[in-house]
Amino acid sequence: MEKKKLAVIALSGGMDSCVTAAIANQDYNLALLHINYGQKTENRELTAFHDIAEFYNAEKKMVIEFTHFQKIGGSSLTDKNIEISKADLENKEIPTSYVPFRNANILSACVSWAEVIDAEAIFIGAVYEDSSGYPDCRPDFFSAFEQVINLGTKPQTQIKIETPIIYMKKSEIIQKGLELNAPFSLTWSCYQNEEEACGVCDSCALRLRAFQELGLEDPIPYKTRPNYAKKQQEQ
Amino acid sequence: MEKKKLAVIALSGGMDSCVTAAIANQDYNLALLHINYGQKTENRELTAFHDIAEFYNAEKKMVIEFTHFQKIGGSSLTDKNIEISKADLENKEIPTSYVPFRNANILSACVSWAEVIDAEAIFIGAVYEDSSGYPDCRPDFFSAFEQVINLGTKPQTQIKIETPIIYMKKSEIIQKGLELNAPFSLTWSCYQNEEEACGVCDSCALRLRAFQELGLEDPIPYKTRPNYAKKQQEQ
Repeated sequence: MEKKKLAVIALSGGMDSCVTAAIANQDYNLALLHINYGQKTENRELTAFHDIAEFYNAEKKMVIEFTHFQKIGGSSLTDKNIEISKADLENKEIPTSYVPFRNANILSACVSWAEVIDAEAIFIGAVYEDSSGYPDCRPDFFSAFEQVINLGTKPQTQIKIETPIIYMKKSEIIQKGLELNAPFSLTWSCYQNEEEACGVCDSCALRLRAFQELGLEDPIPYKTRPNYAKKQQEQ
Repeated sequence: MEKKKLAVIALSGGMDSCVTAAIANQDYNLALLHINYGQKTENRELTAFHDIAEFYNAEKKMVIEFTHFQKIGGSSLTDKNIEISKADLENKEIPTSYVPFRNANILSACVSWAEVIDAEAIFIGAVYEDSSGYPDCRPDFFSAFEQVINLGTKPQTQIKIETPIIYMKKSEIIQKGLELNAPFSLTWSCYQNEEEACGVCDSCALRLRAFQELGLEDPIPYKTRPNYAKKQQEQ
């Protein structure tokens, strides 16, 4: 059997990155990278990361501490003085959960690791259209970053960025995950709580709505499960 | 008097970043950012950073820990199993001191901070032609990164990257620093030692050669001061 190539996967432990790992797992051996950046649900996300890594029997895994996002602040995810806002899925403004330029920081660390371990691709579970409107989730951002990789690494280094779910709706991501047997029960998406998902932050709302649209039950525990799909139909 | 704009300066504490800060100081208030990334001379560089910050009476300063470069390895600066090679200023290969994609990691953190504090520019003391040949010091790399900033931050965020010494020879950097009264005696460039600069690593060699070409004495202590300028004339 031909030895599979190696890819670095940015794995937060959320649903999107888990499905992204499931997709990468079809063609690559996995080098899973998790970043603690002082987000409020850091411990729960880290548990999800290790559980998913075990599920996929990852070839390599690495956990990194980014201390600067908490020092820098400017986001409800990292600054305890900024409240996690309740979801407003119709709002087109950049939400308070935007962590400034987070994906560039994450990708940069992925590239550093990928260059040393000879990985050929970096997978990141960014979602553009059906997402919270973070500027660093735009497809153009990733194309431009790929150009930066070409210019800023050794001539022999060839690393592409793969964003396999960027154009998917959340419900399509779930369908893709089901098709690939992704372990949704091990994932964690909530921005606010660590024991039961809050059910009302942006991240919970997007996830719950998608499961509801498909007529499925999200297998993780929630404190409350508002019916987001119904609310939308009523409008 | 008009309030000056704010700029983030990536300040390692070396000669190049110090002269870059001197240049930025003409037009901007300074927000100085230093990154400990597990390099062997971390403590000495941090002292240089604080000394230079005090010299310039910086408006803001921040020190960040990057733990991942040491975990990732692949560089003689961060991996104790890779020896710091003696300088070979004629060698055009990428030296072992190359830290994979370091400048992208540094710039990403600078941008995150700049976006939150409303800084309009990021200054970085990269040197291209008369340097060690790191791919992430190329002018094209920085232009491409500027494009990533435009795409990956909020629409109202406008941050340009300034690389004022990128085309300068080391001796020109020294002349520029002298012209602006940059505090060379507070800087630290050596990759190897923390008490006296080794005089033989790439970084010491480039610095010493430039001072020697100008017929000047470098004000910092060296263990040994080989005559690099003479060696070159003999060839």
